[in-house]
Amino acid sequence: MSGERPTLDFWFDLASNYSYLTLMRIDALAERAGVSVRWEPFLLGPVFEAFGWKSSPFVLQKEKGAYVWKDMERQARKFGLPWKMPRTFPQNTVLPVRVALLGRDEAWMRPFCQAMSRANFAEDRDISSVETVTETLASLALPASSILARLQSPEERPRLRAQVQRAQALGIFGAPTFFARGEMFWGNDRLEDALEAARG
Amino acid sequence: MSGERPTLDFWFDLASNYSYLTLMRIDALAERAGVSVRWEPFLLGPVFEAFGWKSSPFVLQKEKGAYVWKDMERQARKFGLPWKMPRTFPQNTVLPVRVALLGRDEAWMRPFCQAMSRANFAEDRDISSVETVTETLASLALPASSILARLQSPEERPRLRAQVQRAQALGIFGAPTFFARGEMFWGNDRLEDALEAARG
Repeated sequence: MSGERPTLDFWFDLASNYSYLTLMRIDALAERAGVSVRWEPFLLGPVFEAFGWKSSPFVLQKEKGAYVWKDMERQARKFGLPWKMPRTFPQNTVLPVRVALLGRDEAWMRPFCQAMSRANFAEDRDISSVETVTETLASLALPASSILARLQSPEERPRLRAQVQRAQALGIFGAPTFFARGEMFWGNDRLEDALEAARG
Repeated sequence: MSGERPTLDFWFDLASNYSYLTLMRIDALAERAGVSVRWEPFLLGPVFEAFGWKSSPFVLQKEKGAYVWKDMERQARKFGLPWKMPRTFPQNTVLPVRVALLGRDEAWMRPFCQAMSRANFAEDRDISSVETVTETLASLALPASSILARLQSPEERPRLRAQVQRAQALGIFGAPTFFARGEMFWGNDRLEDALEAARG
């Protein structure tokens, strides 16, 4: 359907607060720009660990951390998005990101990721848990238990690790990150520029 | 003259590449917004050192560093500003920032800072040197040798250290940083938002 349209790759983690701002905005903006977006869920944690960081830089550097939550509040207001300061940051997103990768080529993947990100940053829910993932899948009328069972299959088990390795091979150091015609754009602040670059 | 206008505080370092993008844009944008801007030159180096960093994060983290120069090239193009990758980054800006602080309340401070920042990021000149500072002051028809001599006076000597301490007391962790009605905004990407916040 979208064979002739320019494409944008969109790398994000459900644990990433600035990814939340992009997850909720990108489809409408891409549609308007005539760009097809490939969603690439991954984990930022192992990327940070490879840099020698034991947590998010927003946690490790308290001055920046204090600022980031104020910035998020203002940015969410600017974009008309709900926002609630999460009590736990960053959350462990291994389970929901694995589910997203399993659903990678299915229509429900995007609303699932949006719902999980909203649960994290607008509802302060524990998105690491089987309960929240199950409820979210069920709320999208999806067979939660069979999806969770499929995660145990031999082809699903190595997927997340391979995806993180792809991210690292691309030089990704944060999220959201976009690739347009081979060029990297980092941060929700560059979404519009990345879409424009994709159009050429 | 501008007593009734809303104000914005603008903290920057002449060594900071994203400050360059702001330095060249802020006056026109502020004029359009009806906002008066207070320019606050400071040094980012001691702020980073207090975080335990031995250089700019763009140097310490090579993935982000590689990205930043690509981003700068694109951002400069977007804003119609000249750009040339500096061979030395970050430069030592003790001398030009001291001159800027000396000229803080004088009309030449802003064009001097713009010229030094342009020398750094559009002309790849050594802005740490007495030669470049002298030439830049002279190009603005300013008495370079008397200005440099005044830097040795007892009231000028402690100024830079006091300014860096002010920055740290405000929680500044990067540049450019803006304050509008007591709220911090960080980064050239937030210039427009900060001006809007200043207007209330």
